Amino acid sequence: LHASYEERLAPGCSQVQLGFRYESRDQRFTIYVMQLSNCSALCLPADHNMYVRVVVLPCVETTRCLFRTRGSPPQDAVEVNEVFGMQISHSALRQKTLRVDVCNTSKSGHEDCLAGAQISLADISCSDERRTRWFNLLSRAFILPEVNNKDRE
Amino acid sequence: LHASYEERLAPGCSQVQLGFRYESRDQRFTIYVMQLSNCSALCLPADHNMYVRVVVLPCVETTRCLFRTRGSPPQDAVEVNEVFGMQISHSALRQKTLRVDVCNTSKSGHEDCLAGAQISLADISCSDERRTRWFNLLSRAFILPEVNNKDRE
Repeated sequence: LHASYEERLAPGCSQVQLGFRYESRDQRFTIYVMQLSNCSALCLPADHNMYVRVVVLPCVETTRCLFRTRGSPPQDAVEVNEVFGMQISHSALRQKTLRVDVCNTSKSGHEDCLAGAQISLADISCSDERRTRWFNLLSRAFILPEVNNKDRE
Repeated sequence: LHASYEERLAPGCSQVQLGFRYESRDQRFTIYVMQLSNCSALCLPADHNMYVRVVVLPCVETTRCLFRTRGSPPQDAVEVNEVFGMQISHSALRQKTLRVDVCNTSKSGHEDCLAGAQISLADISCSDERRTRWFNLLSRAFILPEVNNKDRE
């Protein structure tokens, strides 16, 4: 019963397909931003280009850790196919978390990130081969608000 | 060179060990909050109990989706060993994202969540066996601020 109720409500969440590869010889971490699906669920403003922002956190100032894809008009499915790389030791990488957000730039020039995935790199493999996965994108509206004690169940 | 610089800076991030299990016969999803490690990195206030908050998002009102463990005084390593369950179809579960946060209740009664992990359940298996993993906890300070255009590289 829950299932059918939920399935009626939720038209499916947006997803991003990412690939990861760690080359141990060069100590190089590569992030493949491959595609987005079901972006209609994000309610992106039609008059703004959308893009994907990738951040490897926590970030130290000596290394570039923030990347953005090219912008494209809002569409339900987007082939991104962009690749970003950074030099980092495997032990340092395993302490990082990747934030991947779908954003646009508002009229006021602010970056608006509407939804994202957060991926712990604690068990990132150093096998040199690319691993690909789809991740659900969660609306930022669910992350920001803290809960007052009076709202606790 | 980056590596040694990073390793000098970072004393290691905090982590949470979680287990997941989906029993297809009962359509039951079980979350095991097992342990926390290296919590000193979170700089938890010494006079407040810490606990783990688990939310399965997006949440529909008919199902309980928010859970909290018992509180305990701040320590570097904590054996939590609490189990939470919810009834949900496998297809609905695969559209969910789990947010797991380490929180405390401030003097003003607000819930303060200092760090967390966010886990896409897009590829959660329905194999009936429990799978256990460690996840890096990312400070919330890294999630909240949006980036102004002038700060963009």
